Amino acid sequence: MPHDIRIVTEAELREVVRLDLETVDVVEAAFVALARGDVVMPPVMSMDLAAAHGEVDVKTAYIPGFDGFAIKVSPGFFDNPKLGLPSLNGLMILFSAKTGLVEAVFLDNGYLTDIRTAAAGAVAARHLAPADVTTAGVIGTGVQARLQIEAAHLVRPFERVLVWGRSPEKAAACAADLKERLEIEAEICTDPETLVRRSQLVVTTTPATEPVLKADWLHPELHITAMGSDQAGKQELEAACLAQADLYVADRVSQAEKLGELRGAIEGGAWAGGTPPELGAIVTGSATGRRDPRDVTIADLTGTGAQDTAIATHVAARLGDAGTLVRA
Amino acid sequence: MPHDIRIVTEAELREVVRLDLETVDVVEAAFVALARGDVVMPPVMSMDLAAAHGEVDVKTAYIPGFDGFAIKVSPGFFDNPKLGLPSLNGLMILFSAKTGLVEAVFLDNGYLTDIRTAAAGAVAARHLAPADVTTAGVIGTGVQARLQIEAAHLVRPFERVLVWGRSPEKAAACAADLKERLEIEAEICTDPETLVRRSQLVVTTTPATEPVLKADWLHPELHITAMGSDQAGKQELEAACLAQADLYVADRVSQAEKLGELRGAIEGGAWAGGTPPELGAIVTGSATGRRDPRDVTIADLTGTGAQDTAIATHVAARLGDAGTLVRA
Repeated sequence: MPHDIRIVTEAELREVVRLDLETVDVVEAAFVALARGDVVMPPVMSMDLAAAHGEVDVKTAYIPGFDGFAIKVSPGFFDNPKLGLPSLNGLMILFSAKTGLVEAVFLDNGYLTDIRTAAAGAVAARHLAPADVTTAGVIGTGVQARLQIEAAHLVRPFERVLVWGRSPEKAAACAADLKERLEIEAEICTDPETLVRRSQLVVTTTPATEPVLKADWLHPELHITAMGSDQAGKQELEAACLAQADLYVADRVSQAEKLGELRGAIEGGAWAGGTPPELGAIVTGSATGRRDPRDVTIADLTGTGAQDTAIATHVAARLGDAGTLVRA
Repeated sequence: MPHDIRIVTEAELREVVRLDLETVDVVEAAFVALARGDVVMPPVMSMDLAAAHGEVDVKTAYIPGFDGFAIKVSPGFFDNPKLGLPSLNGLMILFSAKTGLVEAVFLDNGYLTDIRTAAAGAVAARHLAPADVTTAGVIGTGVQARLQIEAAHLVRPFERVLVWGRSPEKAAACAADLKERLEIEAEICTDPETLVRRSQLVVTTTPATEPVLKADWLHPELHITAMGSDQAGKQELEAACLAQADLYVADRVSQAEKLGELRGAIEGGAWAGGTPPELGAIVTGSATGRRDPRDVTIADLTGTGAQDTAIATHVAARLGDAGTLVRA
């Protein structure tokens, strides 16, 4: 039985939704739903395509009370830059939560993933970072480096951002972008240790497979959000960081222990802390967050299907007549 | 970087591809690729939505040498008929196997799944059924009952089809459709035992959770394709059938032992046959199929992502300028 399906392009989506406090609240609601425990969220479907130097992840979640659920496909093909194409792509499909019919196809090339990922960083910063953040630091110089700092600035309006990356040129470009976009001071650091020691809020945004942030560098009044690791082979934080911090929080424990920083810490025997709290439990108050301004806190974000369902249903509600209707 | 994505509706897809011997060969090629062992096919992603009386399955596979790979989403929402909507829906997305970019979205409402599933039945019948089939029987009266018999008739042009279902009215309608479509005799049976005893080829196409076909009914010169079970709770064949048959073949053992008939047989202790051969190995000849006309053979089809990638890339090659281009 044919029905109307709305096809929306990246350009159209960029007109409808952006990284702002409303988006942060939408993603925070997804964490609250996860904490309530009634979300149906299967493990991430992951396909490693060594022959094509690529990988594909599929995420989804059904959140009771939401009109729809998303299925999000994220391909990463790492030889694409040689062809002048971005490595990361993908789309989201929104289904009716009542009938399972396809309602919309968001041909976003990963844009919605980018902003929902950054928004999760803001949720973590909002609930875990010290109240006073004057300096934030970012490790990594890509799209998420910019968006994570932009998102964190929404909830902790710091005066200064420090940037470190393996490429000084890219770090300089990232710092220049952030300075212009946020109208704050932006410096590049020559080493990550200096960046961490000077910051109250640090976001790691790399695809590192060897730690880029050492436990020795942790200091009072620090929150770290590690959002780069989303595959079993990745690790950004030295494993000792997790146990040494006053509080370690995962977006989803079942994912973090397979795909996030928790995996390396468990495998290396550096984690004996039992089941850590999830970010949603911190938001709802059912688990305790930062207890003292001098605490060190860590949030480990692997990215959840609940975030995808939350952003996709939010977009659908705001679309109006954007996009193209196809009767199929 | 915007690129053109082809959006194709069910009606357009029906013009491009149908259930014929070419489609059977396309799906057979997927089984051959699986047998070669170089396909990357993650476990089915499955989301059980008890609250909505629904379920969602996601399948995919990367087949080396194919230009693209598909991700297929199949929602089943079983209260839909009360709303005048079909239970099964869904879509397929075709990605470039080289860059991961979305190339096409097939808004097929499950049509491509329907024909690739029926085509797999034809592959099983081609390689496992007795050479001479005069009577075929189908248990179940839905879309797959019709398509499986149509597919089997392509490779074993039997003279007569027997139909059994719980609803005599639906069985009569199914038999009438098959009689008209295939120009053969079509009878309804009052019980499944009679149907099995009179047939050389039987296809079970139900969502049964209790067996609808008993081991006592097996007889020389019989092939059974069980294609209904694709979830852990489903079972069409009494577990003893598998061990009692001369040959049991799975489309994919790793799926059949979780989602197919093999699951029930293993759990009930009725299977001690070790790892059974897969259909692709029968096709390539690396495993032995039917040894004698009097053998009883069983094929257990759960549906593979490789079939989805095969049908989607086949469709893409035949599309021409069908569908709507969207620049996204």
